Amino acid sequence: MAGVTITVCTTCRRGQPAEAEAPRPGTRMLSALEVADLPEGVTLRPVECLSACSRGCTLALSGGPDRWTYIYGDLDPDIHLPEILDGIAAYAATADGIVPWRDRPVIFRKQSIARLPPQE
Amino acid sequence: MAGVTITVCTTCRRGQPAEAEAPRPGTRMLSALEVADLPEGVTLRPVECLSACSRGCTLALSGGPDRWTYIYGDLDPDIHLPEILDGIAAYAATADGIVPWRDRPVIFRKQSIARLPPQE
Repeated sequence: MAGVTITVCTTCRRGQPAEAEAPRPGTRMLSALEVADLPEGVTLRPVECLSACSRGCTLALSGGPDRWTYIYGDLDPDIHLPEILDGIAAYAATADGIVPWRDRPVIFRKQSIARLPPQE
Repeated sequence: MAGVTITVCTTCRRGQPAEAEAPRPGTRMLSALEVADLPEGVTLRPVECLSACSRGCTLALSGGPDRWTYIYGDLDPDIHLPEILDGIAAYAATADGIVPWRDRPVIFRKQSIARLPPQE
């Protein structure tokens, strides 16, 4: 199966005012994923804006021409990391990106921003 | 340049109750685009759900490995069609999918759901 890419918005603020000194929540989410135990074949891709600013933190799961892409929001790096990792592992184990509903972490059931079908 | 795909959610209801007899707003949006004058190389792709149900009607613009993908919502096929067509034409004219801000129709400036960077 094709590798999986996790695209992480690093500028997401979770609706908080930007503090000049502190890393943004999106950057902290990326940092947490960078040191996490990701399944083989999963790559992180930082991006400066996913244009879903009112729903930050946000990330997208994609992977190859055969998988659906899913975009999730309202993520909190301080509390959601275990669920995010579970969701990434479940997604990476599929051929088409569609994880059965009951196997999705609650945050992936409830915090979908959008999904896109595989490339035509 | 690679062709452009407009992915249209046909089940979007615009928050209205589903009427058994009438086509859904998303289906009407697709029908309107099917008979519209689209630029050469632009293809429509119906899909049954983009998982952005609270923001329907929704569509996504994508095209080849070099373009950003944009997802828009809160679209109304009865009033937004001219702006949607302007936005599609502007997008199709780019190599990277990024239309200068001032050249985007207002609905594409204000009703972004999310965007995704080009494929890795």
